[in-house]
Amino acid sequence: MAADLRVFAVEGIPEVRGGDDVGALIAGALERGARPLEDGDVVVIAQKIVSKAEGAVVELACVEPSPVADSWAATYRKDPRMVEVVLRESRRIVRMDRGILVAETRHGFVCANAGVDASNVAPGFVTVLPEDPDASAERARVALCSRSGRRVATIVADTFGRPWREGVVNVALGVAGLRPLDDWRGRTDPFGRTLQSTVIAIGDELSSAAAIVMGKTGGVPAAVVRGAAEWCGEGSGASLVRPAAMDLFR
Amino acid sequence: MAADLRVFAVEGIPEVRGGDDVGALIAGALERGARPLEDGDVVVIAQKIVSKAEGAVVELACVEPSPVADSWAATYRKDPRMVEVVLRESRRIVRMDRGILVAETRHGFVCANAGVDASNVAPGFVTVLPEDPDASAERARVALCSRSGRRVATIVADTFGRPWREGVVNVALGVAGLRPLDDWRGRTDPFGRTLQSTVIAIGDELSSAAAIVMGKTGGVPAAVVRGAAEWCGEGSGASLVRPAAMDLFR
Repeated sequence: MAADLRVFAVEGIPEVRGGDDVGALIAGALERGARPLEDGDVVVIAQKIVSKAEGAVVELACVEPSPVADSWAATYRKDPRMVEVVLRESRRIVRMDRGILVAETRHGFVCANAGVDASNVAPGFVTVLPEDPDASAERARVALCSRSGRRVATIVADTFGRPWREGVVNVALGVAGLRPLDDWRGRTDPFGRTLQSTVIAIGDELSSAAAIVMGKTGGVPAAVVRGAAEWCGEGSGASLVRPAAMDLFR
Repeated sequence: MAADLRVFAVEGIPEVRGGDDVGALIAGALERGARPLEDGDVVVIAQKIVSKAEGAVVELACVEPSPVADSWAATYRKDPRMVEVVLRESRRIVRMDRGILVAETRHGFVCANAGVDASNVAPGFVTVLPEDPDASAERARVALCSRSGRRVATIVADTFGRPWREGVVNVALGVAGLRPLDDWRGRTDPFGRTLQSTVIAIGDELSSAAAIVMGKTGGVPAAVVRGAAEWCGEGSGASLVRPAAMDLFR
C-alpha cells in the first residue's frame, strides 16, 4: 500500500515583518507545535508572508498614479494608487476589461492585478510578488533544513484565478528542492500505449493540497505536505511558466 | 489544532467496463483494502473510469473524418478519426493552432481535445467526457453512501492544461454532496479589511490533492480525501465553469 499523503497547517506563525526570516519563523512554529519536520516534507509558504519579510510591500500614500491608472480607477471605482502599482509590476497587460486587470509580471506569471494584493496587509499598504520566488524558496529551504536537520523542499505559493473556471487555486511561484513538473511522456499505459503529452504540474497540485488546510484554519500562511518525497530534487518555479512563444493565450 | 488532511489512493479497483457501477467498485476495493469510509470523506474519481462505465467510449474504426479533421490531422500527423471525435464533442473551437486543439465542450468545459483521450483505453478506442458529470458524481455518491453507511461526497475529476502555465492539474468536472466554491467575500482579514474577491475553487484543490496519490501509484483511478468535511453540502461541478459572458478568454 502506498503511504498516505498528510497535509497539515503550520499554526502559530507570528505576524511577519520586514527583515524576518520566514524559514526560521516556520521552524519555530513547528517546534512549538511539536510537529517536527521529516525528510522529504514539502513546506508550502504563502507568498504574502514572503513578500512581507522581503519588504515587497508598497505604501499607497507614496504612489503617484499615472493618467491611465486614474482613468481606469475612476471607471471601475478602484484605488488609482493600487492600479498604478499593478501597472508598475507588469511587463505587459494581457486583459484590461470590465474592471479586471490581468497582467504578465516581470517573472512571466500571468495573473490578476500582477499579484498586487491588499488582503492581510496593514491598511494603506499592498504587497507585490517577491523579486525572485525561487530564491525566496531556496532561502526558506536552507533555513528549514538547517534548523530541523531534515532535508525538505519548499514552495512559495499564491492563489491565482484561471480563464474558463470560477474561483482561485493555489499555485507554485517559486520552489526549492522540488521537481515541480512530473514528466510522464514516454511511459506506457496498461494497454501498452505510450503517453504523448502528460506532464503533471505537481508543484501546483502540492500547492493546492496545502491551500486546503491553510484556508480552513483562517489564514494560516504555511503548511506541510508529507508523503511527496518522490518529487524532491532539483527544479524551479520558473519552469512552471509557459514560455510566451509556446502559449496560445498570451 | 486543526485536523490533518489525509489523502490515500483507492487501490485494487479492477479494469472498468461498460455498465459497471463505479461507486460499487470503489466501495469494494476499499473494503478489500480494509480502508473503511468515514463521514465527510471526499471520494475523487478519475473521469476515465466514469466514461468507461457509462459507455462514453468511441471506437475509432466507426468514425468517418470530416474534411477539416482530415486536413488538420494531415498537417500535424494526428489520427483524423480522433480529430473528428474531438470536433463532434465540441460546441466551439477556442484555439486550433500549432497542433493544439482547445475546445469548449457541450458542458462548457474548455480543455485540450474537448476531453477526448486515448490514454489508458484499449487500442482503437478513445473516451469522451461523461454526458453529465454532476449526475455521474451523484450516482457514485449514492452507491458509496449506501454500501458504506457513511455520508460522503464525490468528485469526478480530470486533468486539464492551463493557459500560461506548464503541465496539467486535476480539476473537478462533476461533484455531489460538495460545495466546490468556498466564497470568502465579505469576511474580514486580521486587519479588518473586507475581502473583495476571494472565492476558492476548493473542488479543484481537492481534485489536485487527490491526483498526487492517484498518479504516484501508477494510475490508480480514485482517491479519498479525509479532513475536508466542512465543504460537504450541496453544489455542482457546473458552478465551477465560468459563464462565457463573464470570461475574458473565450
